[in-house]
Amino acid sequence: MKGIRMESFGNPVSTETLLSARERALVALETLVSRSGAGSEFTGWLDLPQDITSKDIEAYKECAQEWRGLDYVVVIGIGGSYLGAKAALDLLQDNFADFRKNDTPHLIFAGFNMSEQYMTDLLNLLKGKEFGLIVISKSGTTTEPAVAFRILRSALEESAGKEVARKRIIAVTDGAKGALRQMVEKYGYRSFVIPASVGGRYSVLSPVGLLPLAMAGVDIESMLNGAKQAMASLLEWNEENPAVVYAATRNALYESGYKVELLTSYRPDARNFTEWWKQLFGESEGKGGKGIFPASAIFTTDLHSLGQFIQDGSKILFETNLVTDEKGGEIMMQQMDDDSDSLNYLAGKSLEQVNATARKGVLSAHVSGNVPNINIETGAIDAATLGELFIFFEISCGISAYMLGVNPFDQPGVEQYKKNMFALLGKPGYKQN
Amino acid sequence: MKGIRMESFGNPVSTETLLSARERALVALETLVSRSGAGSEFTGWLDLPQDITSKDIEAYKECAQEWRGLDYVVVIGIGGSYLGAKAALDLLQDNFADFRKNDTPHLIFAGFNMSEQYMTDLLNLLKGKEFGLIVISKSGTTTEPAVAFRILRSALEESAGKEVARKRIIAVTDGAKGALRQMVEKYGYRSFVIPASVGGRYSVLSPVGLLPLAMAGVDIESMLNGAKQAMASLLEWNEENPAVVYAATRNALYESGYKVELLTSYRPDARNFTEWWKQLFGESEGKGGKGIFPASAIFTTDLHSLGQFIQDGSKILFETNLVTDEKGGEIMMQQMDDDSDSLNYLAGKSLEQVNATARKGVLSAHVSGNVPNINIETGAIDAATLGELFIFFEISCGISAYMLGVNPFDQPGVEQYKKNMFALLGKPGYKQN
Repeated sequence: MKGIRMESFGNPVSTETLLSARERALVALETLVSRSGAGSEFTGWLDLPQDITSKDIEAYKECAQEWRGLDYVVVIGIGGSYLGAKAALDLLQDNFADFRKNDTPHLIFAGFNMSEQYMTDLLNLLKGKEFGLIVISKSGTTTEPAVAFRILRSALEESAGKEVARKRIIAVTDGAKGALRQMVEKYGYRSFVIPASVGGRYSVLSPVGLLPLAMAGVDIESMLNGAKQAMASLLEWNEENPAVVYAATRNALYESGYKVELLTSYRPDARNFTEWWKQLFGESEGKGGKGIFPASAIFTTDLHSLGQFIQDGSKILFETNLVTDEKGGEIMMQQMDDDSDSLNYLAGKSLEQVNATARKGVLSAHVSGNVPNINIETGAIDAATLGELFIFFEISCGISAYMLGVNPFDQPGVEQYKKNMFALLGKPGYKQN
Repeated sequence: MKGIRMESFGNPVSTETLLSARERALVALETLVSRSGAGSEFTGWLDLPQDITSKDIEAYKECAQEWRGLDYVVVIGIGGSYLGAKAALDLLQDNFADFRKNDTPHLIFAGFNMSEQYMTDLLNLLKGKEFGLIVISKSGTTTEPAVAFRILRSALEESAGKEVARKRIIAVTDGAKGALRQMVEKYGYRSFVIPASVGGRYSVLSPVGLLPLAMAGVDIESMLNGAKQAMASLLEWNEENPAVVYAATRNALYESGYKVELLTSYRPDARNFTEWWKQLFGESEGKGGKGIFPASAIFTTDLHSLGQFIQDGSKILFETNLVTDEKGGEIMMQQMDDDSDSLNYLAGKSLEQVNATARKGVLSAHVSGNVPNINIETGAIDAATLGELFIFFEISCGISAYMLGVNPFDQPGVEQYKKNMFALLGKPGYKQN
């Protein structure tokens, strides 16, 4: 971990406007830190890294140890209840982990969709295998995970018997109330608590993210340590604080008419990290007719799909690039006698060097195409850096939403479709309009 | 296959404007069909479904038969050289195909990024395994696939010996020129031709998509038949032609200020289909400072991330929903004695019914939030329907770009970053500014 650096390129906003945005960002930071703003009852995530005790960590690891011999651990959750763990897992494990037997059970995610095909395929996969369920839901009544849990619990009870099944279910839920808490009490499932003051999209460093990651053998202490250090430095009332600068810059760009932010990475395994980021910012900012639309791209892959638009299409977007400082050097381009592919000019360079050079070429090309760019530079991706990045984006998201004048911690707009759906499904208490 | 239906909801554009957009769309269709517009030398994809002969299909299948016993087939390509096959494969195979041994080799994609970690993990995966390479590149000098091919070819030659390796490489490339064609001639690799008149993002129904899909056991005849039928009906000069209506509707929305189109699906395995669509439209339209920014979402998953923004955030987007008519009925929600999860009201409904009902609830919610919606309805997803969908989007994309006054078939904007990158890498003939 070497600390986060932020740099802007091709920003068309005047220095005065940027400085005034930084002043506003500092005010927003103060609102966040003093827990005096809208939704302050949901700022418990500010305490998470230090509130997770070594006893908590021990408890997650014991579960992991006990389930080590299983083939699969199915993690049931949606939105903030799966994206953080999925994001971290993809970045920290082998790109082809699904293809082989590992020391730890394969983590499989479910309850984040209602596709019958997906569930059919999953039930087929689990047939004759040893598996456990981690069900993550604060209320226990969110439709997707509740439905998946009902189906998968039956499958587990059928295959392993009720008594074994009881030991192969862990609930991560509210400490006192909700349907899942009641089931824990009724059936004696093991359980971990999501603090009432932590909302879904800010919950990755609670058992929501940490328990599944422990199951997969991720070094969660390092992740928490990275998060702790980041929390200390990124809450500082300081104009150079990168979380403040990032929030101020994106807000100033938004005010200047840039309505879409494209988070990019040059690592294919960062795809789900960008999905986590999209939820964080989209749900926190997108309200009251406001907000930057969060989109993402993996480069160089998507230069061959979105690159044309970015370079030369409608001027509605700016790019924020996750620049990770990978070591590389394991794969060196070789000189070959036969240079039919005309690649000998790369001989002696590592693949990582070529990738990093592409990044530099893209940055200057897009800036010359009048696309503002922001680099967020970190050290190489490991558990600690990820802990830091989660905190960096959570803090800058809180600041950003307060700058926009919206509550960073609610999501009133997701209720409408649920009401319609419940009415159409005939759920008691809901009526069709 | 039951034909594509298109329906609009909550469209704020006046009927007059929409009708006039349809007139312009018909003119654009005529330009496309008569091959008289910009880039007409790249309209060879209009002939693809009927130009692929049964002899061609036989040849793909022979390769598949010969390689059937391999563990892996690595498909090397980027952009249009991998997205179509990946999109179709995900939709047609088991959601968990990676986790188990199948009758056919696992297809693995490479050369679509330059991540050293990805390549390191891939080389580890291939160690001690039997594998073949399909390298897809019209020119043979696109950096990403050329680099991957150089590395993987060496690995194959090392593990299987030069003579076996030669038989385990198939090139899909230009018929006459380019680096890869030269290597085919020099080393005697098997090869298939990408017609000169077919550009990358319109090439899925050429050997670019068909050969990998045949390797994975996909019914490519059905796919081509679906495409043929679609080509016949969707090129008709008819105001109700759904390709015309779709192009006209999205163009009218764009002219009214909607700058972002969100393609949605309720199937998690459609993620890469949306990526294929993003390349098709983004690269075809995004030029001259114009174009709709193509984004995508998988529901209900992303209702728990982007849903808030869509419902209640900046009013810059409209949604296009892929509505597939899945049969379902294999997983029925059960009545349970213990209704702790309060889901008994769903008893007797299939999971697919619940998913479809969510879709209806979402549509009315988003429309009431002033988000225009377009439904593109097809039959259940199978190879034929996919063939039809590919053609539907290709034709409507050609029409859309002509309506916008841009060339649907070039991508001049992707050259700038390459020039910068080559200069930074010291490629002969390129100089740093």
